[in-house]
Amino acid sequence: MSKKLDKITPRSVDFPQWYTDIVLNADLISYGPVKGTIIFKPYGYAIWEHIQQILDGEFKKLKVKNVYFPLLIPKSLFNKEKDHIEGFAPEVATVTKVGDKVLDEELYIRPTSEVLFGTFFSKEIQGYRDLPLLYNQWVNVLRWEKTTRPFLRTSEFLWQEGHTVHSSAQEAQDFTLKILNLYAKFAEETLLLPVIKGQKTEFEKFAGADKTYTIEALMYDGQALQCGTSHYFGQNFTKPFDIKFSNKENQLEYAYSTSWGVSTRLIGGIIMSHSDDSGLVLPPAIAPIQVMIVPIKNDEQLTTVSNEVIAALTNYRCEIDFSDKSYGFKAANTEIKGIPLRIEIGPRDLAENKVTIVRRDNFEKIPVLLADIPTVVDKLLKEISVNLYERALNNRDANTKRLNTFAEYKAALNAGNGLYLAPFCGKITCEEKIKAETQTTTRCIPFGIEQEKAKCFYCQSDSELIVYFARSY
Amino acid sequence: MSKKLDKITPRSVDFPQWYTDIVLNADLISYGPVKGTIIFKPYGYAIWEHIQQILDGEFKKLKVKNVYFPLLIPKSLFNKEKDHIEGFAPEVATVTKVGDKVLDEELYIRPTSEVLFGTFFSKEIQGYRDLPLLYNQWVNVLRWEKTTRPFLRTSEFLWQEGHTVHSSAQEAQDFTLKILNLYAKFAEETLLLPVIKGQKTEFEKFAGADKTYTIEALMYDGQALQCGTSHYFGQNFTKPFDIKFSNKENQLEYAYSTSWGVSTRLIGGIIMSHSDDSGLVLPPAIAPIQVMIVPIKNDEQLTTVSNEVIAALTNYRCEIDFSDKSYGFKAANTEIKGIPLRIEIGPRDLAENKVTIVRRDNFEKIPVLLADIPTVVDKLLKEISVNLYERALNNRDANTKRLNTFAEYKAALNAGNGLYLAPFCGKITCEEKIKAETQTTTRCIPFGIEQEKAKCFYCQSDSELIVYFARSY
Repeated sequence: MSKKLDKITPRSVDFPQWYTDIVLNADLISYGPVKGTIIFKPYGYAIWEHIQQILDGEFKKLKVKNVYFPLLIPKSLFNKEKDHIEGFAPEVATVTKVGDKVLDEELYIRPTSEVLFGTFFSKEIQGYRDLPLLYNQWVNVLRWEKTTRPFLRTSEFLWQEGHTVHSSAQEAQDFTLKILNLYAKFAEETLLLPVIKGQKTEFEKFAGADKTYTIEALMYDGQALQCGTSHYFGQNFTKPFDIKFSNKENQLEYAYSTSWGVSTRLIGGIIMSHSDDSGLVLPPAIAPIQVMIVPIKNDEQLTTVSNEVIAALTNYRCEIDFSDKSYGFKAANTEIKGIPLRIEIGPRDLAENKVTIVRRDNFEKIPVLLADIPTVVDKLLKEISVNLYERALNNRDANTKRLNTFAEYKAALNAGNGLYLAPFCGKITCEEKIKAETQTTTRCIPFGIEQEKAKCFYCQSDSELIVYFARSY
Repeated sequence: MSKKLDKITPRSVDFPQWYTDIVLNADLISYGPVKGTIIFKPYGYAIWEHIQQILDGEFKKLKVKNVYFPLLIPKSLFNKEKDHIEGFAPEVATVTKVGDKVLDEELYIRPTSEVLFGTFFSKEIQGYRDLPLLYNQWVNVLRWEKTTRPFLRTSEFLWQEGHTVHSSAQEAQDFTLKILNLYAKFAEETLLLPVIKGQKTEFEKFAGADKTYTIEALMYDGQALQCGTSHYFGQNFTKPFDIKFSNKENQLEYAYSTSWGVSTRLIGGIIMSHSDDSGLVLPPAIAPIQVMIVPIKNDEQLTTVSNEVIAALTNYRCEIDFSDKSYGFKAANTEIKGIPLRIEIGPRDLAENKVTIVRRDNFEKIPVLLADIPTVVDKLLKEISVNLYERALNNRDANTKRLNTFAEYKAALNAGNGLYLAPFCGKITCEEKIKAETQTTTRCIPFGIEQEKAKCFYCQSDSELIVYFARSY
């Protein structure tokens, strides 16, 4: 819009305010009229569309098929799995009327759709040849939240939820991990977020799951963000929902199920990992505009050259800023919006057949011959991706610490947020107390780190786990 | 699934049952647990994905940007435009509680989002340079329906809703028609549905609109289907929602707005226009599978050739049926699912370096040399498209009649459904009576037919309109 760009609070001064300033000034969202809801403006929604497109392609490679299940869930259906309803009941928006007419049964707006898929699968599945069933849907869900923040925690959010059914525990378990690995690869290679893969503790696992796997990232401020989860349900849903199949021996068996999801909170993760005091910084792969061409004034020669440059960059999402704003405004706008590369076109450079390309990640200005632009753009976008990932990884490493005692942990938290690795007994009661005392939670029991015999850092009982703790979004 | 294919009721015997049989046997949907809701199964959802992809590309060419607005609308906001709330109130699902907590204000699940866009636009728009704003969203909406039928009328459906704001009445009006033309072109060229473009009468126009434009198609049974609408609101929403902009003279003016949408009912329109007693018939452009290769038995030679054929058809959505079903089952399955072309691969044909291609639209069997398959597939898909369109057009022409008196009209309706063109005064009271007496409504005041001075076929008053009447879905 035509309003002028506002100041962004420095990240070091007030991290939450910096985040809000970026979200609003980069024109990603506007607040909705209902508490905790957001309007995805075109630029914000385009980021989600790129995330969707890439992930959807990956799901399809695994032969996952897209479907659409209804928004509303009868209360009676939701009550079939005890842990599930207990976990979600307090935050479920409930439809009780249509027009003036009170409904016979209350309907819940889906906070997640396990029970709908469960009901469907029980009718759909007959024999082992029908399995596995691999479904996914891209939809809106509602979970009423007390404290909300754009993308990170909103009453309504957009996500994908995958639901699969398998004929053996092993196959279901393998698929749960296959999706976790897909999420981790996507987070690292596309969103440039280094993530830790692991399993949730009993206290933190999904309501109704046997095992919940997670990818966890560390934000710039030292708080963790759960970026995606994959749940192995065993027969927790197939038994109450009567999902049976006749096996090769023609005997009826309960099947095994999974579910998994990532949501629009990933956008929050991108912002809090990569952005800086000049505004948003976007990973090239999901940037709605990868290259902005900025003629430093509006004249005929610069217009002609701008059009030639964009014609040579058809492999990229590229635009020219022909608005009547000042050069300074246009340049600042590319920075606030996190556009990976800006190509400045001015008469002095052109006299030498050159333009200046400016990197968003480190503000480096690179003089480039006109003929070399496509090659250099390609190279720089790759370099930016490498740099953003490394920067985030360095930040995580600098904020990760191994601890052995709770005293050490409290001292470390006093000094600042971060990821803290500690031996832990895994008991729900200990975890509740730690949360009450420190406002931190376990993030995961990490894969790829040798679990060890030690004393729990909190209760001193024998422990065979080593677990990440952190304050989290 | 592994269940055997069920019989389809002949279309001529029981059209509604034929429709239901096709929808279920082609594996498009399953019924949801809440009355009037459907589950889009993978094959049904894939059709919608193709519709989305093509239309979305067309919208983007017009510089329309995708956004996402919240699902829930505060009651007070909805009440701002009188006609709008009156039109939608009886069918709006209402959230009154979250968990056990009763909300201070009731929230409506969107039946359409004019009031949310209106609220947003009033904050967003400042000067004439901000205009036009051209937004669209692909979302779910709810409208509680008494009688429901898959795709055609469901309590929840999927659609796109475009919302635009302009600085002049003329520009808004032009854009409304530009979208109508886009819809008509898409319906005719992609879905192969001949449509009539026109304007809705006062009685039939959208709640809150100045003018509603529509595309109307005639189904095989002689009933009409409204396939898409585009509304010109004038200042009906911009005034109550205070959407103003400062014009070039720096004076504040109310803006002009439009909205437009097509929904998953298009899938119902495709089924009822093209399908037959063997099952679904799909337009090639939106068929999830365009070509099914069916080796007539599973042996090594046929497998090798099938793989060679699919490798030569990378420009098409093509699959091989390697299942252990009988050849007859596989062939019937391609017909029930409306796959435009089936390539039968058998040893007798192969001895002459040939295969047999079977058209879904007319069951013609065409022997084709292996080397010619890609060329012939391309040609046949085009011919099928032409044929399906012409068949639907011939059906419409055969069921369209010009009338001058209400007696003639009642006689015609007794003989059968169809599109009836008659001179009409346009009065709401006449239209109400005609609807009560005949269960038919006006479909539109068509474009491209000369409107004429005559006597209203119902009330005999002077009339300058000529209008289509029909029974409709």
